[in-house]
Amino acid sequence: MFELPSRVSIREVGPRDGLQNEAPVATEAKVRLIDALSGTGVGRIEAVSFVHPKAIPQMADADEVWTRATKADGVRYSALVPNSRGARRALAHGFREIEVVVSASDTHNRRNVNRSTDESLDDIAALIDLLHGAGATAEVIISTAFGCPFEGDVDPKRVAAIVDRVVADGADRIAFGDTTGMGTPRRVRELVSLTRDRQADIPLLLHFHNTRGTALANVLVALELGIVEYDASVGGLGGCPYAPGATGNVATEEVVHMLHDMGIETGIDLDRLVEVAELAQEIVGKELPSGVLRAGPRTRLTAMS
Amino acid sequence: MFELPSRVSIREVGPRDGLQNEAPVATEAKVRLIDALSGTGVGRIEAVSFVHPKAIPQMADADEVWTRATKADGVRYSALVPNSRGARRALAHGFREIEVVVSASDTHNRRNVNRSTDESLDDIAALIDLLHGAGATAEVIISTAFGCPFEGDVDPKRVAAIVDRVVADGADRIAFGDTTGMGTPRRVRELVSLTRDRQADIPLLLHFHNTRGTALANVLVALELGIVEYDASVGGLGGCPYAPGATGNVATEEVVHMLHDMGIETGIDLDRLVEVAELAQEIVGKELPSGVLRAGPRTRLTAMS
Repeated sequence: MFELPSRVSIREVGPRDGLQNEAPVATEAKVRLIDALSGTGVGRIEAVSFVHPKAIPQMADADEVWTRATKADGVRYSALVPNSRGARRALAHGFREIEVVVSASDTHNRRNVNRSTDESLDDIAALIDLLHGAGATAEVIISTAFGCPFEGDVDPKRVAAIVDRVVADGADRIAFGDTTGMGTPRRVRELVSLTRDRQADIPLLLHFHNTRGTALANVLVALELGIVEYDASVGGLGGCPYAPGATGNVATEEVVHMLHDMGIETGIDLDRLVEVAELAQEIVGKELPSGVLRAGPRTRLTAMS
Repeated sequence: MFELPSRVSIREVGPRDGLQNEAPVATEAKVRLIDALSGTGVGRIEAVSFVHPKAIPQMADADEVWTRATKADGVRYSALVPNSRGARRALAHGFREIEVVVSASDTHNRRNVNRSTDESLDDIAALIDLLHGAGATAEVIISTAFGCPFEGDVDPKRVAAIVDRVVADGADRIAFGDTTGMGTPRRVRELVSLTRDRQADIPLLLHFHNTRGTALANVLVALELGIVEYDASVGGLGGCPYAPGATGNVATEEVVHMLHDMGIETGIDLDRLVEVAELAQEIVGKELPSGVLRAGPRTRLTAMS
C-alpha cells in the first residue's frame, strides 16, 4: 500500500534525555549504560549534555562520563548544549555532532530559559556559527512542536517558520520534539507534510513521547511520510520535569520491535537492547514503562507448564 | 491521503473483559461502572459473561449485576457465553447480542477449554443455531488472531479459514482478539486484508491489547483499511490470566482521544469517559495503565504557577 522505508536510523537518547529526567544516578552507571548501548548495534547515541550543574544536576558529571565512556567504532555520539559555554565544552571533548534546543511555544521557551523563542533563535544563529567554525554540525531541536502544555496547540505554520529560519541560519539537521506527548497522527501528518513542502531536503528527526499512547502510531504515520530518523530512549527512560504529569520518552525497544516486525532494518540487536533496558531499570531502581521490556518481544513464547 | 472513516463504533469491554481479568470486585462496583459507562455516550457495552463461577469467580454475580444495572436507551449491551448453558442464561436475561469465543491457535484453545479449535467450532455452530432460534445475534470472537503466546505466529490463512467456517455457520459478526498483544501494524494489515478479500461484508470488530505499545498504531492501520468497530476497556482494565506477562486491553480513552483528534466521531464524551476511568481505578484500587487517564487529554493545559 505504501512504499515504506527499508531502513530507519534510531538515535538512542536514554543516557542524556532519559537520565536527565530521572533522579540522579552514579557516574559509573551512566558509563555502563552508554557502553552497553554502544554494543547493541544502534548507530547513534545522545551521550550527555553540557549544562550548568545547578540547572541540571543529573548532568553535572558529563565531562567525566564522556571521558570514561568507550567510543565504539560505527556509533555517532552527540551532545546537547544550551549555550556557547556548553558548546565549547562539547567541542573540547571532541564532539562534532551537537544539538541545540528551542521551544516552538514562547511560553514554554520562557519557562525553560527565560527568553522568547525569537531571542533564542538569535542565540542559536550565533551557536551554529560557532559550531561550524570548529568543524562541528548543528542540529536544532524544536521542542513543543506538536503542542505546548501551557499554550495548547502550536500552529504548524509557526513551527515551519522556525524551521525556515534555522535552515537559513545554517542548521544541518532539524528535530521535532513532542515534549509532553501531545503529538497525534493528525498533528504529525500536518506538521511533517508542511515542513517537507517547504524544506524538502533538510534531515528531519522526530522525537516522540508516549504520554497518551500515540507514540508508535505517530511513528507509523511519519514512516508513511518518508521520515527515517527517530529518537527513542531505552526502557522509556525519562520524561519532562517542566511538564507535570508528562511521562515517557517512547521506549527504543518498542520502536525497534515494531519496525523489525514490519521488515524495516535498524541495525539493532533487539535481544541485546532488551537486556540494556533491564540494565536501565536496575540503574534507576524502578519499573520502566516499556511494554517490550516487561512482556518481551512477540517472538518470546510462553513455556507450557 | 486516505479516506478515513468519519465515525467509529466503540464497544466498551471494561465491565466484562476488564473486570474478569482483575481481582474480584463487589457487585455494587460493577453496577456503578456499567451505569457510569452508559452515561458517556458509548454505543455498545459488553456487560457481563455467563460462565461457571468456578471457572471465572469474577463473573459469579453476573445475574445480579445485570438485573441491577440501568439499561440506557441507545446503548447496545452484549454478553459473552462459553456454552449453551451460558447462552440460555443470557437469553433469559434478555440479551439479544451474544458473543462466543474460540482461539485461532489449537494450543491456546486447549488451554482454555480443553478442546481443539475444530471441536470448539462444532460447538459454536450449534450455539449459533440456538441463539438464532431465540432471536439473538451471534458474534464469534477469534482470539489469538494475531499470534499465540504458546505457538507464536498464527497463519492468517488459518484465521481466515475459521472466519469462512463461522460465517458459513451463520455468525452475524466476527471479532479478532489480540489476546496477548502480539498484534502489530504488519499483522493487522495482513489479516484484515486477507479477511476482507474473502468476506467483504461480514461486520468485523478488532480487539487490541497494548502489551507492546502497538495498540493505537494497530487501530490506525485498521482505520486505513476501513474497519470501524473496536473494543476498548475503560482505563485499560484487564489483561489475560492465561498469558503471563500480558497486560492491558487498550484504554478506551486513549482510542477515543486519538480518534477525536483525527476528526473521527465516536459519540463519546471524552471528559466523562476519563471520569469513569478514574472510577474504574478507584474500583480496582490500583493505578491503571491509561496514559490519557494519567496525563489528561492533550487539550488539558497545565496551569502556570
